Formats: sequence, C-alpha cells, structure tokens
Amino acid sequence: MTPYSDLSPSPRTIMTPGPVEVDPRVLRALSYPILGQFDPEFTALMNETMSMLRSLFQTENRWAYPIDGTSRSGIEAVLTSLIVPGEKVLVPIYGRFGHLLHEIAERCGAEVATMEKPWGSNFDPEEIIAAIRKERPSLVAMVHGETSTGRIQPLEEVGRFCRENDVLLVVDAVATIGGVPVEADAWFLDAVIGGTQKCLSVPSGMAPITYNERAERKIIARKVIERGLRQPGQPSESSGLAGIRSNYFDLAQLQDYWSPARLNHHTEMTSMLYGLREGLRILLAEGLEARFARHRLQERALMAGLTAMGLKLYGDPSCKLPVVTCVEIPPGVDGESVRAMLLNRFGIEIASSFGPLKGRIWRIGTMGYSASMRNVLLVLGALEAALLKHGVKLPAGEGVQAALAVYEAETA
Amino acid sequence: MTPYSDLSPSPRTIMTPGPVEVDPRVLRALSYPILGQFDPEFTALMNETMSMLRSLFQTENRWAYPIDGTSRSGIEAVLTSLIVPGEKVLVPIYGRFGHLLHEIAERCGAEVATMEKPWGSNFDPEEIIAAIRKERPSLVAMVHGETSTGRIQPLEEVGRFCRENDVLLVVDAVATIGGVPVEADAWFLDAVIGGTQKCLSVPSGMAPITYNERAERKIIARKVIERGLRQPGQPSESSGLAGIRSNYFDLAQLQDYWSPARLNHHTEMTSMLYGLREGLRILLAEGLEARFARHRLQERALMAGLTAMGLKLYGDPSCKLPVVTCVEIPPGVDGESVRAMLLNRFGIEIASSFGPLKGRIWRIGTMGYSASMRNVLLVLGALEAALLKHGVKLPAGEGVQAALAVYEAETA
Repeated sequence: MTPYSDLSPSPRTIMTPGPVEVDPRVLRALSYPILGQFDPEFTALMNETMSMLRSLFQTENRWAYPIDGTSRSGIEAVLTSLIVPGEKVLVPIYGRFGHLLHEIAERCGAEVATMEKPWGSNFDPEEIIAAIRKERPSLVAMVHGETSTGRIQPLEEVGRFCRENDVLLVVDAVATIGGVPVEADAWFLDAVIGGTQKCLSVPSGMAPITYNERAERKIIARKVIERGLRQPGQPSESSGLAGIRSNYFDLAQLQDYWSPARLNHHTEMTSMLYGLREGLRILLAEGLEARFARHRLQERALMAGLTAMGLKLYGDPSCKLPVVTCVEIPPGVDGESVRAMLLNRFGIEIASSFGPLKGRIWRIGTMGYSASMRNVLLVLGALEAALLKHGVKLPAGEGVQAALAVYEAETA
Repeated sequence: MTPYSDLSPSPRTIMTPGPVEVDPRVLRALSYPILGQFDPEFTALMNETMSMLRSLFQTENRWAYPIDGTSRSGIEAVLTSLIVPGEKVLVPIYGRFGHLLHEIAERCGAEVATMEKPWGSNFDPEEIIAAIRKERPSLVAMVHGETSTGRIQPLEEVGRFCRENDVLLVVDAVATIGGVPVEADAWFLDAVIGGTQKCLSVPSGMAPITYNERAERKIIARKVIERGLRQPGQPSESSGLAGIRSNYFDLAQLQDYWSPARLNHHTEMTSMLYGLREGLRILLAEGLEARFARHRLQERALMAGLTAMGLKLYGDPSCKLPVVTCVEIPPGVDGESVRAMLLNRFGIEIASSFGPLKGRIWRIGTMGYSASMRNVLLVLGALEAALLKHGVKLPAGEGVQAALAVYEAETA
C-alpha cells in the first residue's frame, strides 16, 4: 500500500484568465483508450485537427498544428524557428506577456528592441509602425490579448505594414483565440500562437500554432533532418540560414511529422490531441460568431454587476480585453484574503495580477466553458458576500440584480 | 453542424515499444475536472508527484518533477540547462536514440564527441571509460534502454568513474523507467530522464526528470529570473556561466516553479499531472520489485512463444532490453503487410524499426499495462495467423503453447 490517496479534486468554478473549467465533453475525450501514434486512425485525427485549427485561426495556411507543450512552448517554437541569431526583433510591450516575448526572443539570440506602454493601455498602431521604420527589424512579436492587464491590441494596420515591408509578424493570441476574433489571413499575421486552457476550455498541454508560406520559407532555409533519420547523402547542415537551435521546437522537423511523410519526431500526445480535437469540434459546432457573442454578453453582465456593486474597473476602457475583466481592489482590503475566502468557502477562483499590479487588482476571466451566465452570477454573489465579510460597504444585492438585468434585456 | 464525427477510437492491443495501452485508472484520472494551477489542492498534488518520482528514480534528490512535453522535451531541458555552449560532450551511440542525444547536444552548442557500436550490441563500460579519459568531456549523455534495437546499457561503472572524475552523467531512461531498475543514486547518475508512455502506461505528454546537487550547482550558476517577474535589483544576467538558451526548458526557472516559491512560469498541465500522479500511485502500489518481475515474466513468455514459432530473435542476447523484444522478419515476408494485417484484422499493433533495421525486424514491447499475460498470448496467436496467411511455414499452435508453459511453470 502507498500513502497516497485516491485522486478526488474538489469542484471549482474557475473564473481566472486561465486555466478555466474544461468542457465535460473534452474531459470525456481525454478518458478514451489511446491509439498508437502512427495508427492510421490516429493520423486521421491529427489531420482533422489541422483542418479544424485552420477554421479557428481563420486561415488558408497549410500549416496549423499543435506544439506539444503549454502555451509558451508554442511561442518558443515559433520564435526559435523564425529568429536567426543576431537578427533584429521588435517587441512592443504593454504588460507582462510582452516581457515574456522579449525574454524568449533574446534567448533565441535576437537583438531585441522594445517599446513600452504603461500597464492598462495599449499602442496606437502608428506608434508601432514608426518604431518599425526606425528599428528596421526582421520580425515583430507582440501580444494580442494581455491577460496581466486585461487589454487588447488591434493588429490589422501593423500587419499590413509588416507585409508591405517584408517584416514577419508573430502574434501571441494565447488569451484571445476562440473567445474574440483572431483573423490570421485578414490581418496579415505570419505566425500565430493560441492557447488551449483559456477560451478553448481544453486543459493546458498543447499550443496550437499556424504560420504562412512567408514564415515557412525561412524555416525551410534552416532545415536539417534529424540525426539517426538522415538517409545517405542528406545534408548535415542547413542549406541557407543558420540551423535551428532546438530539436523539440524545430518547426521544419515538426511539419514533416504533421505532413503525409510522417517523419518520426516526438511521440504525439494522444490524449491531449483527443481533447484538443473535441474542444475544436465543440467550438465549430457552436460557431465562431456565436461564441464571440457569448463572450461579449458574459463580459457585459459581469461588468454591469461589478460596477453596480460599487467596484471600479481597471484600465483604459477603449482597449479592454473582452474575456478578462480587471477590477480594483477597494482601499484597505486584503485582496488575497478575499480570494482565499472565495476559494475556500465558495469553491470559486479569481486571479490576482503580476508586478506593478500585484495587490492592486483582481482579474476575472470569462473564457470558454467558464463564460456562462451561471458562473457570472455565482461569482458576483460570492464576491459581494466576501467583500461584506471584509467590512466593505456596498449596496447589497445590486451586483447580481444588474447582471440579471443584462441577461433579461438580451433575451427580451 | 460540423462535418466532424464523435470521437470513437477503435480498441487496440498495443504491443509496441510505446506508446502503450494506458491503465484505465489513469484514463479515469484524466477525465476529472481541473483545478487552478495555484490552487493549494493542486500544488499539493504537484508535491505528491515529486515525492512519488523520487521513489520511481530511486533517489534522494530534491529535484524530481515532470517537464511539460513529450519524452524528448525532458532530454532537451536537461541538456540545454547543463551544457554551456562550447563545452565538450561525449555521446556513446548504440542505436537511433543515441543519435538523438548527439543531435540535441549539438544544438545546445556542445562540441560533441561520439563513439558507436554496431546496432544490436552495447558497450563494455571500460570502452566508455577509456573514451572519457581521452576526450575529457564535461558531460556524458547516454541511453539506458535503446528501443530501436532492443538493447540495454549497464551504467554503474561509468557512473562511478564520472563521479570520481567530476564529469556529469545524463541518462535517457525513457524506455526503462518503471519497467526495469533505474537507480539514480546507486549508479551515480547526475540527471535522468524518464518517459510516461512506455512502462508507466500514462499517455505521452510529460517527461519526468530528476537531477542531483552537482547538476543543480551548474544550473544555478546560469540562472536569470524571467523578464516581467524580476524585482528591482535582481540581475538581468547570470552570475557565473553563460545563461540558458531556452525559457521553456530552463530548469533554474522550472525548479522555482516547483518549489514553495511557486514563481510563475508556464501553466502546469493539470490533466496530464492527474494522469502522471495516478500512474505513479498505481506503480508504487504494485511495488517496483513486483513490477520489474512482471516485466521479466512477460518477456520470458513472449520470447518462448516467438522461438517456438520458429522465429529468430535479433541482437546480442547478453544485453537484451527486457521490455522490447526484437524479432527478425522471415526471409521473403513483407513486414509491413504482416503489421497491417495484425492491426486491421486483430486490432493489435507491433512496431517496425528505423534506419538499418527498417524492414529487417519487428519490435514487440511488453511495457506497463500492456505487459500482461493476455496481451502476450493474443499477440502470439495473431502473429502466427498472420504469418500463416503470408505463406510462412511454421509449427502451428506451438507459439502460444510455449508461452502458456512459461506461465504455468511460474505459478506451479
């Protein structure tokens, strides 16, 4: 006998900016017996998943497949495959995850130029375009939705300028994909990284990516077939640019694995792929437009409830990220104590934030399966109770009533 | 409506060297609702998993945790964190996965020296020790169990020599962990990488690793805290050796995430962690010794059945890997046609091999949940039928009878 008990996780209403609750149909998919990685039934599921990802990213790109790791693995795979050491990269930063792009690009060997906006705001596209003119980077990497501050960055103008000036544009859409529009082709995005554990409501563990022919050309120029798989005569060095520094994140090798050649690389994560495919199937059955509308409705109800309760929303409203609502912690209140009460008494989780916002705001997500009327009403009621218990004066009952009014107006 | 059908994978008896069948209790664990990554209930599960991994690796090391990716992600994380670009690394190669270590070490910037044995054999430890004396590497990386050839490499003598001569020894135990003994401390292994999808019978998706204080000292000397998480005054460059090139695989950052500090890094794969914890719980309940004995028994029965059928086992028997049995494809037989018949008619999967062994051998795994009497008897019966159908002359019925005799002798 071992001292370890049976797994028995407590039920949770997860209203953070991720990971959020997983759709029960996805959980069911995770529990199905596995297939071998080269079983034709499994490779057919891989192909279906690629096709679904193209719909998700709104792209005609050939390449759309998951990286086998958490969201930042997708970011690192794209950046390490696209950045030749020594190249100039521009990273506009308006929150924590911009700093992460800076960090990863730097470790890929890039000479990184950054530009920063105060947390709570975003960039005017013209500012970024001016910086591109000045810095002349070969690649721009930026965040579409900053969960650390709850802001969103418009991309189309920057995308068009990059396309016209032969600059690659890489976008971290981890927080937005599946919850708000992400249009890879229409916005001229050369590579996009999505996340599973947010608006897709699939557990953390895969990072769907897509990239176009412009990106692929650069990747192919760095390609080397893996040692142990090379046929006699195949080159041991890349033909053009310096080789890719990572084997695990080598998109040139990964796309061979995801192509009909099925050249052996890693062992695909069977169960996670089942989950991703099911999450995408559910999303496409709901429809992208309906899904985006659902996310906007939940945001509206949540914001109405929070403001009716007398709380102050954080940040510039003109660039609010629809799927994350940041709210200021009332003066004198211990934010962590409120969060602990929500979790321990109500089984509801909301998030704190990072760096300069630590202790100043709470972040409430309305993402994927968690973006539901039920969850919004539960979190508003519980937050009110926790605030009252912490001695905050507020108009009791108003928050939930205001949210209900939003739902009733919607169905009227 | 979408054109995508309900997920409904066909039942499979998977007798490859991985991925193998997943224990149904692990599949159940994957289907449980998730917890947030910093939920105290979840971090408690992370800590339990670390403790279980120490038992699995037979180590007192502080650090034993999974990398969030497939097995080779664990190899790359260890090598990229331990190899400072320009350092000398020795890789003894006796099959395909030695070439992978070479490839990954090279991409980490190492100056790699290799030594090779013909496929089907392994190294005398004295040969490796002589090469270490000659090459004077700072690190030796080698494979414990080569699934491509079905061979195993003894490690203890090499480990002792490395320890005495201040060389780090990194071992790929992906194929062996949980199926045959892997004794990190007793064999003087500085870092070990295991796999989930083989003898642990957990789906592919995590790579458990362990490393000792010798390895940690080198990692810490390369440490830089992530941009966006750094406090004022914390350094932006490592204090000693050159920094680690990867963010995702930076063990200095990952061990902070797995420590009580819980410094934010990636979003831990909740469902995969549930699965890994359950797989380890099942393994420890069975007991390591009993589990190793079960794997040896299934190997014995399988080998008896195959030889009674008139088939020839491949490779040097003195270094046979107990959990993979390689068998020569009879002359004139199309190995892929036999494999397809097994899969399509019987729902049973066995493997082919790589490079020089492609088309020459089949590889049959007896790993984890798939290492069962039922599976061994089913694969022997089905293989006999498929060979008869392909016109091979063999003593019908003898294979299964020989395996049954092994089981009966065991219980007599």
